[in-house]
Amino acid sequence: MNEFELIQAYFSTLASKGAGRGVELGIGDDCAILNPPANSQLVVSTDTLIAGVHFPESTSAFDIGFKSLAVNLSDLAAMGAYPLWFTLCITLPDRDTQWIEGFCNGMAKLVQQTGIQLVGGDTTKGPLSISVHVTGDVPIGKALTRHGASVGDDVYVSGVIGHGAAGLNMALSGFDAPDDKRFDRCFLDALQRFNQPQPRLGLGLALRGIATSCIDISDGLLADLEHVLCASKAGASLKLELVPLSDAVMKSDLFGDKSEREKRLLACNAGDDYELCFTVPESKRESVEALAVEQSVILTRIGKVVEGASIVEEGGCVELVSLGYQHF
Amino acid sequence: MNEFELIQAYFSTLASKGAGRGVELGIGDDCAILNPPANSQLVVSTDTLIAGVHFPESTSAFDIGFKSLAVNLSDLAAMGAYPLWFTLCITLPDRDTQWIEGFCNGMAKLVQQTGIQLVGGDTTKGPLSISVHVTGDVPIGKALTRHGASVGDDVYVSGVIGHGAAGLNMALSGFDAPDDKRFDRCFLDALQRFNQPQPRLGLGLALRGIATSCIDISDGLLADLEHVLCASKAGASLKLELVPLSDAVMKSDLFGDKSEREKRLLACNAGDDYELCFTVPESKRESVEALAVEQSVILTRIGKVVEGASIVEEGGCVELVSLGYQHF
Repeated sequence: MNEFELIQAYFSTLASKGAGRGVELGIGDDCAILNPPANSQLVVSTDTLIAGVHFPESTSAFDIGFKSLAVNLSDLAAMGAYPLWFTLCITLPDRDTQWIEGFCNGMAKLVQQTGIQLVGGDTTKGPLSISVHVTGDVPIGKALTRHGASVGDDVYVSGVIGHGAAGLNMALSGFDAPDDKRFDRCFLDALQRFNQPQPRLGLGLALRGIATSCIDISDGLLADLEHVLCASKAGASLKLELVPLSDAVMKSDLFGDKSEREKRLLACNAGDDYELCFTVPESKRESVEALAVEQSVILTRIGKVVEGASIVEEGGCVELVSLGYQHF
Repeated sequence: MNEFELIQAYFSTLASKGAGRGVELGIGDDCAILNPPANSQLVVSTDTLIAGVHFPESTSAFDIGFKSLAVNLSDLAAMGAYPLWFTLCITLPDRDTQWIEGFCNGMAKLVQQTGIQLVGGDTTKGPLSISVHVTGDVPIGKALTRHGASVGDDVYVSGVIGHGAAGLNMALSGFDAPDDKRFDRCFLDALQRFNQPQPRLGLGLALRGIATSCIDISDGLLADLEHVLCASKAGASLKLELVPLSDAVMKSDLFGDKSEREKRLLACNAGDDYELCFTVPESKRESVEALAVEQSVILTRIGKVVEGASIVEEGGCVELVSLGYQHF
């Protein structure tokens, strides 16, 4: 099976059979031809995942496929964008068709959930690496960005923080549910969310016109909030004890004999949560509450945007230093 | 220097200082925000380059930067598209700032030539790998594709064929111009074009409304023409002796003691030329001649589209079998 047959047999299943939204010509030519939606702006993002860096070497092909697309969709969610199209560059060490099938199945699960369509890509031989490029659309001027937070805005976070940190530890320690003697439902949840993070696309769309800034939590809550503050030229005051923590972080002894506060700081500095952190004017608190119900998602107010350039703890003068992941 | 500082110091130089064409928000947020040009379709393509596969390990950082963007721009040229935006995923083994500077300078040379703008990307640590995603635009319905060739159309090729094959052999054999005892100007040309292929963007734009199909020659003239024929459900009859060959292929003894015909077949089966192969109705021969003068490019008629599904040699019944590069 050569490159063309590989694409035909597996990857083309990720392109919808009928023409997808705005797809004039999909995979199979030098380029795809796409019709941008009227009265819209396009938002684009790209992320690479490397074995042993972005996922443990032991990760299943299905989960790698799912996660590669999920982390990119999470960037669209953070902009309040609707997913349209993606391309996939995959470098494979060999032609393991069983692996490729698993990978495509994982990706297909999210394709079905979100309606995004594969429109192009490249398959090459080498150490396992996956680069996905996603395109979404927003009505003109409605995209959420990092630079709109104002002093006085509330700071919110969706879901719970620490699934990424707990899931990574579970995976690296060889947690083998449901037979593991450490088994607890919350550990399984954390591992599941680490391997198959759910991009908050519905929430992102609903936050348009409500949030003044938004970011997805990939580097860690504190590091990502810092990106927002840096772009918005402001600081933030957080109540650390309000940050909603993953049960798996609190219950697990994988992090050693740490206090609750230490675990909380650890979770706030770990990445891979793919929740949204966003700012909203105080006057729109009720809208946020309504939205939490409508979207069936926990939205927690954890602090305020203040003058300054750093994140401090409310009531104290402790500066919370982010320790986001550094590649180099 | 961390990932953010790296991006700031080097890669942001590839984004224009003022807002580029349609760029509402460039690098620095979760996504870029882009305004698609009115009355246009978008064309997108993506290609990955791996050290030792797509370029010899000895290739300079400058040439790797140039080539990574050039091969993607060549796909836009094949569609008759105007380059708008690109994203860059680069995986680097270490933080060698001198290498990164050279890479960015190579890429910047093409950015300046073409006006394309970097709008996003990702830097990760691992074995050297570069994935570029390009977006261009064409007036609605005007894109060149692979599927429009009709029986009776002439088959053309731009420039000369074999620079890629000769250049690769030069590079692998350690050709060290101008001090190499084998020195000949044409060898230097071949090496230069192998390392810094010039995407035929002007030609692609000019072929809109003239060519019925078009492809860029990355896999080899025969293999790429086969893609066109397969998509157009036709065959082709070629005069092999008309294929314009690189002097470097004819003069070089790097290919051993081969006949002219053998060298010709070799060049037609080698990739990395990044010329355009296209089909045109006989009625438009004069337009093609005018275009060759206007674009200062050699355009050679090498055969015709015929009934069938394969490439045969005119006057004979020899089937020309393509041996395009296979990754697996």
